[in-house]
Amino acid sequence: MESEFCSKFPGQDWPQRSPHVSTIYLDFNRTTPTAPSVQEAMQPYWGHHFYLPNQQHPLAQAIHESLEQARESVSFLVGCDAFEVVFTGSGTEANNLAILGATQEQSSGHILVAAIEHDSVILAAQSLARRGWQVESVPCDQFGRIDPDSVAERLRDETVLVCVQLANPVMGTVQPIRQIADVCHKRGVRLHCDATQAFGKIAVDAVTLGVDTMSISGHKFYGPRGSGALYLRGGLKLSPIAYGETREMGLRPGPENVPAWIGMGVAASLVSRCIDEVEASFQELHERFVSGLRSSLRGVGFAGNEDVLGLPNTLCVELPAAASKVQGIARQLVVRSPESGSLSDEMTRVLTAAGRSSSQVVRTMQVSLGWTTSREQIDRAVEMLADACESVNS
Amino acid sequence: MESEFCSKFPGQDWPQRSPHVSTIYLDFNRTTPTAPSVQEAMQPYWGHHFYLPNQQHPLAQAIHESLEQARESVSFLVGCDAFEVVFTGSGTEANNLAILGATQEQSSGHILVAAIEHDSVILAAQSLARRGWQVESVPCDQFGRIDPDSVAERLRDETVLVCVQLANPVMGTVQPIRQIADVCHKRGVRLHCDATQAFGKIAVDAVTLGVDTMSISGHKFYGPRGSGALYLRGGLKLSPIAYGETREMGLRPGPENVPAWIGMGVAASLVSRCIDEVEASFQELHERFVSGLRSSLRGVGFAGNEDVLGLPNTLCVELPAAASKVQGIARQLVVRSPESGSLSDEMTRVLTAAGRSSSQVVRTMQVSLGWTTSREQIDRAVEMLADACESVNS
Repeated sequence: MESEFCSKFPGQDWPQRSPHVSTIYLDFNRTTPTAPSVQEAMQPYWGHHFYLPNQQHPLAQAIHESLEQARESVSFLVGCDAFEVVFTGSGTEANNLAILGATQEQSSGHILVAAIEHDSVILAAQSLARRGWQVESVPCDQFGRIDPDSVAERLRDETVLVCVQLANPVMGTVQPIRQIADVCHKRGVRLHCDATQAFGKIAVDAVTLGVDTMSISGHKFYGPRGSGALYLRGGLKLSPIAYGETREMGLRPGPENVPAWIGMGVAASLVSRCIDEVEASFQELHERFVSGLRSSLRGVGFAGNEDVLGLPNTLCVELPAAASKVQGIARQLVVRSPESGSLSDEMTRVLTAAGRSSSQVVRTMQVSLGWTTSREQIDRAVEMLADACESVNS
Repeated sequence: MESEFCSKFPGQDWPQRSPHVSTIYLDFNRTTPTAPSVQEAMQPYWGHHFYLPNQQHPLAQAIHESLEQARESVSFLVGCDAFEVVFTGSGTEANNLAILGATQEQSSGHILVAAIEHDSVILAAQSLARRGWQVESVPCDQFGRIDPDSVAERLRDETVLVCVQLANPVMGTVQPIRQIADVCHKRGVRLHCDATQAFGKIAVDAVTLGVDTMSISGHKFYGPRGSGALYLRGGLKLSPIAYGETREMGLRPGPENVPAWIGMGVAASLVSRCIDEVEASFQELHERFVSGLRSSLRGVGFAGNEDVLGLPNTLCVELPAAASKVQGIARQLVVRSPESGSLSDEMTRVLTAAGRSSSQVVRTMQVSLGWTTSREQIDRAVEMLADACESVNS
């Protein structure tokens, strides 16, 4: 089970023979393993170099410099200046900081949130409603796409913030963020973009996208858990949402998570170096999966079409059988199916927002490829899915 | 440079020959290295076992179980039930959650905060003042002690929360928390206790202390950066302060930091197993330091006296010369001296609250011992301090 990508990541020794070698993990949009070179880079900072960067002695100064190198690497990935990167503990924390931090000083206002945002964005916005804010949802089309005109027609004089993610983890839809940013800025409104699902899958450039704040999550692109960042466009103001010693421009208190942030820096460099090859490889595996499943499974469908930009690693598959039953049979396959019929499940919420009926939702399976996904795994996954559908329906 | 404690931690292979072997680190109240066995325990959860515990497949179930074992270990350290432990990213986050989460639902009220609390406690409370709350400081005596009567006489009908730390990192003072808890509970007021400085130095038991919420920080007791926890007494309500998928009883959104929290669990077990020996060893080294410095440095003084409970690893030394100048000469010694004359520096703020004049503050040095501190290091540190003071004053 050789990875197609291993050769492209010098120095990476991904575990090829995991104890669960028969398992095929195709849920990389949820979380990714920490890359071997990232683990290695973190290692010295747990023990030998454990100092906090804000201490006065030279050993701490060295830690400070390593951390600033990591910030440089993240800023290069994001396409911004290093001083525009605020380290956080997760993408969820970055989303909360961007939304609650931009609205903290006002007792009321209007905020627009795309219907298919991540839970952390939707729930942070809803928490504002309890404080007297007006929270309005922007609908998407059947492909999960947010129309810039839909945003434009909802902007009001009281609108303070618009939140539209760069890419959706369920449907793979990549949003026309540049156009949405233009629409917002014409009215002097700030745009927050949750880009956590895009890094490591497509090239991202904050300046070209024109966003004001943007969330980054290390564990979505082979960096460690505990690492995240917020891009805050130079000159923009933001209030902290938690308090303590002045760190990260006064926006993120608590001890610097030096190992995790240095790890995220290394993961960012990996992505920056290889993103073109990664995209091309994902594209190939994506096509292999679609054509394989089409030829071996009658009645299968895929969300999205060729006119809609999509994440190359993401497949939203409509099966001819209930996804949970298929997963119950194809137990070696780790994919995502709706956890419940309720809208508190992100997958159900997104698909429903895109106009899927509940009978379509329960037949939908979410497949996301990773850097270690091999052609062989794709072929086996297709086979397992076809077999499982057949036995569910027989 | 052999550690006195190594033998007490089976399986620990602390680095004895660091690249900075000549440096003597005596600033363990600020941060500690991650114990070797903790690093080892975390290792599999970065790569092989990278799944999130809330996924549906059996591999994720196994992660869930490991995480719950870590919660058990932390609860054993804290002296509570596992369901009373909420994992967080740091002690700072736990303090913010306890304070802002307990006051979220009310637009005004009264909160009491000890004068010598950690920045995260003081600044979180001050953020409430901007929302219309009344924030009142409780003074301490010359030993940094908070008198339960001082708390009692400040309690009002509108008081919602009292914050008193268990142990102070600068002066080492251990507070009479049980009595303060009784005083609070008599008036139906909640007590939050920042205990981050106590774990790994003295035995702690949340139930005996009678606190309602209590903060824990992994990196203060040889656990990893990125790990913290809040003890929330069973049945007590708290609101989240950030939003996202329901995790940690709905109180802490964002992906579970599985490696860090499992690491903290291992560190907690280490502490639980060895705390008596640790206390005894700290006591011995503490006495060695005090008597060594007294006999070689005329005019030296120590905060605290025998009637005041103190952290056995903490020494607050009043030198006969400016601490920053002494540190400038004794460059191999990593200790803490006031960073500036301003009250934004925790050390200056605490010492000033305890009645020290500014000329005393600048002569104060904060020394904190760790599990790896050896007798030889103590002797060298004493020598270096005495020599440095002599050359400053000559």
